[in-house]
Amino acid sequence: LNAEIQELRRFGGTPDGGTHRVAYSDEDLGGREWVLARMRDAGLTTQVDPAGNLVGTLPGTDPDLPALALGSHIDTVPYGGSYDGTIGVLAGVELARTLHAENQRLRHPLRLYVFQNEEGGKTGSRLLIGAVEPSELDIVTASGFTIGEGIARLGGAPDPLTAARASTGPLAAFVELHIEQGATLERAGVPIGVVEGIVGIRRWFVTVSGEKNHAGTTPMDQRRDALVAASRLVSAVDEVALRIEGRQVATVGQLEVDPGAPNVIPGSVRFTLEIRDLSMEGIESVLRAIQARAEQIATDRGVAVDFEPFYLSEAAPATELLRRAVEGAADGLGHRHMRLPSGAGHDAQSMAKLCPMGMIFVPSRGGISHAPDEFTEADQIT
Amino acid sequence: LNAEIQELRRFGGTPDGGTHRVAYSDEDLGGREWVLARMRDAGLTTQVDPAGNLVGTLPGTDPDLPALALGSHIDTVPYGGSYDGTIGVLAGVELARTLHAENQRLRHPLRLYVFQNEEGGKTGSRLLIGAVEPSELDIVTASGFTIGEGIARLGGAPDPLTAARASTGPLAAFVELHIEQGATLERAGVPIGVVEGIVGIRRWFVTVSGEKNHAGTTPMDQRRDALVAASRLVSAVDEVALRIEGRQVATVGQLEVDPGAPNVIPGSVRFTLEIRDLSMEGIESVLRAIQARAEQIATDRGVAVDFEPFYLSEAAPATELLRRAVEGAADGLGHRHMRLPSGAGHDAQSMAKLCPMGMIFVPSRGGISHAPDEFTEADQIT
Repeated sequence: LNAEIQELRRFGGTPDGGTHRVAYSDEDLGGREWVLARMRDAGLTTQVDPAGNLVGTLPGTDPDLPALALGSHIDTVPYGGSYDGTIGVLAGVELARTLHAENQRLRHPLRLYVFQNEEGGKTGSRLLIGAVEPSELDIVTASGFTIGEGIARLGGAPDPLTAARASTGPLAAFVELHIEQGATLERAGVPIGVVEGIVGIRRWFVTVSGEKNHAGTTPMDQRRDALVAASRLVSAVDEVALRIEGRQVATVGQLEVDPGAPNVIPGSVRFTLEIRDLSMEGIESVLRAIQARAEQIATDRGVAVDFEPFYLSEAAPATELLRRAVEGAADGLGHRHMRLPSGAGHDAQSMAKLCPMGMIFVPSRGGISHAPDEFTEADQIT
Repeated sequence: LNAEIQELRRFGGTPDGGTHRVAYSDEDLGGREWVLARMRDAGLTTQVDPAGNLVGTLPGTDPDLPALALGSHIDTVPYGGSYDGTIGVLAGVELARTLHAENQRLRHPLRLYVFQNEEGGKTGSRLLIGAVEPSELDIVTASGFTIGEGIARLGGAPDPLTAARASTGPLAAFVELHIEQGATLERAGVPIGVVEGIVGIRRWFVTVSGEKNHAGTTPMDQRRDALVAASRLVSAVDEVALRIEGRQVATVGQLEVDPGAPNVIPGSVRFTLEIRDLSMEGIESVLRAIQARAEQIATDRGVAVDFEPFYLSEAAPATELLRRAVEGAADGLGHRHMRLPSGAGHDAQSMAKLCPMGMIFVPSRGGISHAPDEFTEADQIT
């Protein structure tokens, strides 16, 4: 398994240990061909589904039972790491290969998914649940191809998209192994993370409107400086998210100042606010606390503050049965484990719409991800 | 005088009452031709100096005395107002015309300057003091012409620039009438501002370096968010400038976030800090207070803060003799007056290097300037 993780770096591996294998690129197509060959060697019957995902199946002893599914993705962000997604795919291959080599069969069919374009919007898994709008096919990806062109390059048939929705057949469960992409396991010294669920995400554009004015001729006590007001609100976002009990996070990642000249008092500022939490109600309560602070700042500083929502991703709790199954397996092998939320999105989030879902996290060194330094020890992956 | 202020709007006047007459444009050239004719009608001997400024002289009774100079500019910012600069030029024409019509002569020669490209960097007045670097001639202005091309269009001879330095001859004093561009006089209900001097300006790029990280997987208490730290510093700039005694101002007008994505904790933020005060020591003491706050924030938030100076404009105090002369004249006419600093730069700032300098401010309605709404009542200008 760990040797294959390194071998797959033939397709887009960079000299610094990272991997540049963006969805739909030649590196992605090469990597998929190579993985497809490994899947066949492992005894899986393979196909490319209409969504462009690779799908492998190992028959079970009872043909009436729904499939037990697992999988992840092998595409990366531009100049990213070599573990994100990849370990979940190749662990699935290893599992099938082991069953096949020992001539063991499960009662359920075993299904392995290699989802396409996870990093560019979880396209492959979202096509399975009918969550992709036709307009999304026109988005140009990091490969230079649109998503529609990319799916065709992978051998999928994006038109009609609804064909993809029907393609999974009944599933008993879906489990994804993935790197944590944070430092919680490393800091705790615990090798196995039992994912409680994937956090929901809401994003807003926040506009602070003050009064543009001459930075030389406007005394300090006569200013309605949009950036000073926005700065107080950015500080408040941090304070609120820290103070409220729970593991919610709130981030201002983008901020633009108008007109943006050194000698002009800013007239307006627009920034993004992102809140993530395991429950959508938790997100709402953080928002309400931030909005209360915004109202106070607006009064104090003579500005207006407006919140405009622009993105929503529903939280996806993991199924308790599968959390316990992961804990039981770890206990059986003598590995310590802890529960934690996934702050990042994953294909498992889509799959939770189809069947019971679980995720296993392994530690990320230094919490680093989406960068060449991304690393998980071979023992931990095993 | 007030009729001529409106007449000059034939060159670049906009339907909303403003004026678009950027330096070196056809509107600027047309306006200068028109002003030149008014200057000649007022009995002034005129020339274009090598710097491209219009210069008019009315002889005095004693040819050995240095000239008493006044003036301002007629160029505007893009889509600006109709009073900034213009009133100082046309008041000078009116003064010469009155002396000429009544056949009165002063002992000193009277000199009127119409400085070129004030809005684009006080080019005309700065050429008189040898403060323009040759490289500045290559800067492209709002007219589309470079400054060098523009000076040639005006009939100046930018090469060699040093010729301009010598062109004023000895000057006894320089006085500039200008709109306040702030709301201090209006709020105080005082029609005459006696300018204490033109504030000095220093600007820095401030860089806050934290740690870029995943906005979903990095808990709140493990962040080194450059934008949260920068926001605290922007608030501190405002607090410090408000709290210190005096009329200094400090502004953060431009701010950029890296990488600037909604789902990435900012790794670094770069913003401009501008401090203005009548004394350069005052600017230094505000900077020191801000830097002390920056150090505290850097420690609290685990970030680094760096200040890199990029602009300096020396303060230019007005000459006390001329402040008193303005006060005496206002008293004689029964007009209330008050002293105040000029927060904006003016040609008078250059002229202060050559001779005693004074400035008279008249109120700006609502403190508005550099916009079509810029307005001063006819009575106040008179």
